[in-house]
Amino acid sequence: MTSGQATVPAPARPAADPGTGRDAILRAARRAFTQRPYAEVTIRGIAADAGVSPSLVVKHFGRKEELFNTVADFGPAAAELFDAPLGVLGRHMVVTLVNRRRELQSDPLLRVVFSLGNRDERSLLRDRFQEQVTDALTARLPGRERALRAELIAGHLLGLGATLSLHREGAGADATPEHIADLYAPALQSLIDRP
Amino acid sequence: MTSGQATVPAPARPAADPGTGRDAILRAARRAFTQRPYAEVTIRGIAADAGVSPSLVVKHFGRKEELFNTVADFGPAAAELFDAPLGVLGRHMVVTLVNRRRELQSDPLLRVVFSLGNRDERSLLRDRFQEQVTDALTARLPGRERALRAELIAGHLLGLGATLSLHREGAGADATPEHIADLYAPALQSLIDRP
Repeated sequence: MTSGQATVPAPARPAADPGTGRDAILRAARRAFTQRPYAEVTIRGIAADAGVSPSLVVKHFGRKEELFNTVADFGPAAAELFDAPLGVLGRHMVVTLVNRRRELQSDPLLRVVFSLGNRDERSLLRDRFQEQVTDALTARLPGRERALRAELIAGHLLGLGATLSLHREGAGADATPEHIADLYAPALQSLIDRP
Repeated sequence: MTSGQATVPAPARPAADPGTGRDAILRAARRAFTQRPYAEVTIRGIAADAGVSPSLVVKHFGRKEELFNTVADFGPAAAELFDAPLGVLGRHMVVTLVNRRRELQSDPLLRVVFSLGNRDERSLLRDRFQEQVTDALTARLPGRERALRAELIAGHLLGLGATLSLHREGAGADATPEHIADLYAPALQSLIDRP
């Protein structure tokens, strides 16, 4: 049995940055908005979880609606993941995903999956993912069955994040992003290349 | 924006079976144990969520510890998913996963991912997944880097469930299991076959 604390995507709570606590607020907001109905989420609850004052949350991110929009925004992650020519996009996506997970101690996409376990109000987060990730990828793909192929590519990306989070002390944790891409990226590339 | 009710993996609450309510209890128990700390889960809460009496929960599944063991048991799903010769195992896993999702209106593996969003007590569910799915698959694989390959195969399976759940009215919902396998299973098979 492990220690009961995951570093990705819900890390053991670190001390808030002495300067700002910005990262702690974002992590707390992600947990709150993916796990609870929107109506039940409060700035005060997020602040308590992050170990900062409610006014600091508002100072950094604005009010609840603005904070939700920040948390639900997959646009920057998608832009970075998709920023490569089609011929090498599969490998670029895998290497970028693994690198970002390790740098941020958080997965850039996986939070959308947590929202599936919540029966209420999580459709906003899902809709945002679909627009910013799946539809954006569909628009990039040539050939037939673009929507299906984009959904399956999104599946490969979400699955990579899921398995690295689940086996956080496993073989994937010791592998380089490049080696993971050697094993995992051909799946994505063949869906990209399929005519 | 969608209706806010997912059929997989958290379906709109159906009327409890007049006879037993067994499926409704299982679904409620899965939600409870993946989303809340073990210590906070109660038979009474699960019964209320399932629309049945607490005594019916105990009658079908026993007390809380036994109910947890039922919910956390990936053994039957793994046995079915892995029940094919290595040469066709990739395709078998994909077709079986999609078929089971559609029959059960629930994914056989994906609930382990929801537990990642819960900081407390979810390690038991994760540990069970690792033993029953990842380690079992590792033991089946020939060749080198078996643990890493098994983790990545588990990722492909979790990702397929995640994307079908996210895009529940998408292109994947209209595709046959065999066609999804045409597109998705080569990724798993190449990890199985890799020397």
